[in-house]
Amino acid sequence: MTVYNFSAGPAILPKPVLEKAQKEFLDYNGSQLSVMEMSHRSSIYEGIINEAEARLRKLMAIPDNYHVLFLQGGASLQFSMLPLNLAVGKKALYVNTGTWAEKAIEAAQSVPGVEVEVIASSEDKNFTYVPKITKEMVDQDAAYLHITTNETIGGIAFQEIPDAGVVPIIADMSSNILSNDYKVTDFGVIYGGAQKNIGPSGVTVVIIRDDLLNDEPVFAPMLDYRVQAKNKSMYNTPATYGIYIANLVFEWLEDLGGVPAILKANQEKAQLLYDAIDTSPIFSSPIAKEDRSINNIPFVTGNAEWDKEFNQIALAANMQNLKGHRSVGGMRASLYNAFPKEGVVALVDLMKKFEEEKAGK
Amino acid sequence: MTVYNFSAGPAILPKPVLEKAQKEFLDYNGSQLSVMEMSHRSSIYEGIINEAEARLRKLMAIPDNYHVLFLQGGASLQFSMLPLNLAVGKKALYVNTGTWAEKAIEAAQSVPGVEVEVIASSEDKNFTYVPKITKEMVDQDAAYLHITTNETIGGIAFQEIPDAGVVPIIADMSSNILSNDYKVTDFGVIYGGAQKNIGPSGVTVVIIRDDLLNDEPVFAPMLDYRVQAKNKSMYNTPATYGIYIANLVFEWLEDLGGVPAILKANQEKAQLLYDAIDTSPIFSSPIAKEDRSINNIPFVTGNAEWDKEFNQIALAANMQNLKGHRSVGGMRASLYNAFPKEGVVALVDLMKKFEEEKAGK
Repeated sequence: MTVYNFSAGPAILPKPVLEKAQKEFLDYNGSQLSVMEMSHRSSIYEGIINEAEARLRKLMAIPDNYHVLFLQGGASLQFSMLPLNLAVGKKALYVNTGTWAEKAIEAAQSVPGVEVEVIASSEDKNFTYVPKITKEMVDQDAAYLHITTNETIGGIAFQEIPDAGVVPIIADMSSNILSNDYKVTDFGVIYGGAQKNIGPSGVTVVIIRDDLLNDEPVFAPMLDYRVQAKNKSMYNTPATYGIYIANLVFEWLEDLGGVPAILKANQEKAQLLYDAIDTSPIFSSPIAKEDRSINNIPFVTGNAEWDKEFNQIALAANMQNLKGHRSVGGMRASLYNAFPKEGVVALVDLMKKFEEEKAGK
Repeated sequence: MTVYNFSAGPAILPKPVLEKAQKEFLDYNGSQLSVMEMSHRSSIYEGIINEAEARLRKLMAIPDNYHVLFLQGGASLQFSMLPLNLAVGKKALYVNTGTWAEKAIEAAQSVPGVEVEVIASSEDKNFTYVPKITKEMVDQDAAYLHITTNETIGGIAFQEIPDAGVVPIIADMSSNILSNDYKVTDFGVIYGGAQKNIGPSGVTVVIIRDDLLNDEPVFAPMLDYRVQAKNKSMYNTPATYGIYIANLVFEWLEDLGGVPAILKANQEKAQLLYDAIDTSPIFSSPIAKEDRSINNIPFVTGNAEWDKEFNQIALAANMQNLKGHRSVGGMRASLYNAFPKEGVVALVDLMKKFEEEKAGK
């Protein structure tokens, strides 16, 4: 029986990528070495990381004045690195859209010398919508405006990137990078953990505009964007194998037709599930329709017992990791790039059966 | 023709480990999921990381009052994290034994509020020996004494751990962890990048005594040992796949007979090469005999042209990554746990042939 993996991350990877990686696991390209065993300074490995960068640049249309870095530590380390590099002695603006935005805000507040201002929040409605940002709300002297383009737990996403005037927008794009067609030039910095749409956990992609590299060195070279950019992600040994898998995922996405093609597929998958939710007598989504994420779709029955029961039935039908985050409850379907449409169809079928069973109860 | 991979890191991994990982690459234990695709919070993945910790505890006889963490960022991030957590407002003592010790010293000097004192150095003889440390040299009020147990580039290693009195010893053990039989209880903190004796790059092992966890929170949760220990390496998503491979390497080492068995094998491999060097009319080692590393063995002919020629011959004979570090020149054989004795025999044969060819020239 097919397993459908709805995990929010680490998440499902494209089967052809895994098959190719398995095939060359012990012998990459006739080298008789596993990619894991290669010196990061070897020409063969440099070919891999350079290819990964070139592919990502092409997929996202990243201009030459942006650096592409493959770092470690996840978005969580970026939450601290960003203000440390860009906002000491300055003001940093944040939009609070839920769990992950809050984590970024808290981390910035702990960096000495950074003045954090939350200019908008959707906390008043339990983070079920994306607050409107106008240029007038953005202090034009601020170091940056930080947004979370997609809230993995809450299930809301920025459909349009606000106009922040001269202030660079910094985006935690962990859960919808390469899944949405945002324009890189709308951002000063884009960052994200790899473990949703890119590859295994342990790789963090940072795309940073050249003029935003810190002027003053940061106390720790590993946390210093200028040092990392100057060394092209090789200040120390990067997560070599994860970057190799990312390169294969980029290749797979290229072959599929790139971001426009995957966006269309993702929209179709999401629409299937949202239609089922919106026409359901028992399932519902708390999220404002215009702000819904196509990548993370939380839904509930409004009855904790039924939620539990549905989660059990789904698990028994080999639908894994569908249970909602403990802070939200209910169910959450994470439909990243590699998630197959058939899995959504199977989930919708199961929802219909559950509705019939519960009808009139 | 067999490839022998003398890389200093990322380095050769045990073939049985790679074969097992390849076999279950697409389907771990009947789950129909790759380990890469598993939520780090799933019970199946928790089983893996818990097993990895338990195995490492057993292999190194790590007592219960030490935490075992699987972090990211390599030893290079630890160079900054350690003083940040343990030595702000205090004095931190360092022993300078070469390239990697110097990196640790420089990073500590950049952490505000840390007073760094280098209490011993072998710089006077180009880092070809390990300086003697006596208790009298160790300021008993210092936060810690930092040593680099094995210099990957220089090729020297601590054969005995000094007595630092009440001051905890902190060791960068990146290149000889699990390869030497040091006693964990001689250290306050042991840390190391995984990419030599443990697994792929991107995993950093930190073994820290409970009483050394920082009292004051560090400005960034990801850099805070107490936060990482409290969350059992899961404050955010760890490098899940790398930890899985580490677990397989630990299992392989257990099956071989653990650290005592591998130490014996490593000593035999090193002895073969050192004997060849010491009896050679043209090859030589600059390192004091009593301080020689069994893991990284640099050697030279004293003639830059011959070094170049030998490196080319070795490469043609499928001996990869034998070229010495650019800062040292010559050759360097990195003989980690997974490196086979046959590779050393082949290298020694090649050296003999080269000697014959050059005899009398």
